[in-house]
Amino acid sequence: MSAPDGGAVRPADVAGTARRRGPYAKSAERRRAIVDAAFDVFASRGYRGGSFREVAERVGMSQTSLLHYFPSKEDLLVAVLARRDDVEPEPDPDEVRCRAGEGARGRAARFALSIEAQAEANVGIPGVIELYAVLSGEAVTADHPGREYFVERFENLRRDYVEELTALRELGVLRDGVDPVRAAASIVALWDGIQLQWLFDRDAVDMAAALRDYLSLILRLPEH
Amino acid sequence: MSAPDGGAVRPADVAGTARRRGPYAKSAERRRAIVDAAFDVFASRGYRGGSFREVAERVGMSQTSLLHYFPSKEDLLVAVLARRDDVEPEPDPDEVRCRAGEGARGRAARFALSIEAQAEANVGIPGVIELYAVLSGEAVTADHPGREYFVERFENLRRDYVEELTALRELGVLRDGVDPVRAAASIVALWDGIQLQWLFDRDAVDMAAALRDYLSLILRLPEH
Repeated sequence: MSAPDGGAVRPADVAGTARRRGPYAKSAERRRAIVDAAFDVFASRGYRGGSFREVAERVGMSQTSLLHYFPSKEDLLVAVLARRDDVEPEPDPDEVRCRAGEGARGRAARFALSIEAQAEANVGIPGVIELYAVLSGEAVTADHPGREYFVERFENLRRDYVEELTALRELGVLRDGVDPVRAAASIVALWDGIQLQWLFDRDAVDMAAALRDYLSLILRLPEH
Repeated sequence: MSAPDGGAVRPADVAGTARRRGPYAKSAERRRAIVDAAFDVFASRGYRGGSFREVAERVGMSQTSLLHYFPSKEDLLVAVLARRDDVEPEPDPDEVRCRAGEGARGRAARFALSIEAQAEANVGIPGVIELYAVLSGEAVTADHPGREYFVERFENLRRDYVEELTALRELGVLRDGVDPVRAAASIVALWDGIQLQWLFDRDAVDMAAALRDYLSLILRLPEH
């Protein structure tokens, strides 16, 4: 890593823009631009097809500069996955109006529809889903740079779902005998597992339908 | 791979035992011994901790000889996973008698108990479960040597479960509205996904309970 910096922070930037806007803001902005570019590259090319080189080219940086922001490919890929977590697709408002309706059952339906919408959006970014499958598998091994990300991601997802399922139980729209803690883990598990099968054979499974079926089993949804 | 063979097939074997029993039987036996040793090594040490060297030592072979049977670490690891598929743990007969009972509901309960028994057995072999998680993730990428194994494994598992769920539906013990094809994929998915979470945090999830919950949602089990 002793090669001269090839483009990340040019002297002019440091003297001009960066000073006016603060070096931290500048660095954060560049970091975001790298992650955006990496998202696009890996979304279209997948885990093996995507390369550091192509990401560097897209943001007009040398690979050496890129390594200043992300010391390893794994670090960059984890940032790509974290970015996906931040951009939750929203369900179609017309569908929500039509299928969810009002009241407690409406809230249960909105919860189900938001999960379905994300599952459907994932069909459009197979490269990112592939990235997720490879990294989540690798990261179970000790000392993997992505381990902490996945531990936290699972904790956060389970906690969010436990909260919503507990609220739905209080509203009387969680089916009898369903445990919010175990059901929360099961939603996440089913989702990860069905994505894995989908990556091996896209015609064999329907990701959104598998989640919809499960949610219909545990929730009292509006009757149509 | 030009190093002399260090122990796999000694001249004495070729002239004696191997000729009497046929070279194919000899080779198959040695292959099995390697996979058995690799299963033990990776079951106790996990994906990163296990090594070709240790497997070779256990079977009294050089690493070069080992590579004659399994050209890459991935090939050997896939064979370890395939071996696990062959050894399905059976549920405790007393528990089956007590919880399953007779008739159609009894058959549904036996199906559920056999899945639970396997999930519980997996708790005892975290190294193999780790291996499965790493390889199934890696194998989604094109040209991975394990890809074909996973494609087939998922096809076989889904087909077996579809058959059993269809039979249970005919016996009237599949709940209304449950689709055997989607439920079969969901059992496999839930299982893979809950194992993944368990590898990141063994106290956070109960693998057997997640599967039991799901099977209770889709099957009419005996009432106790």
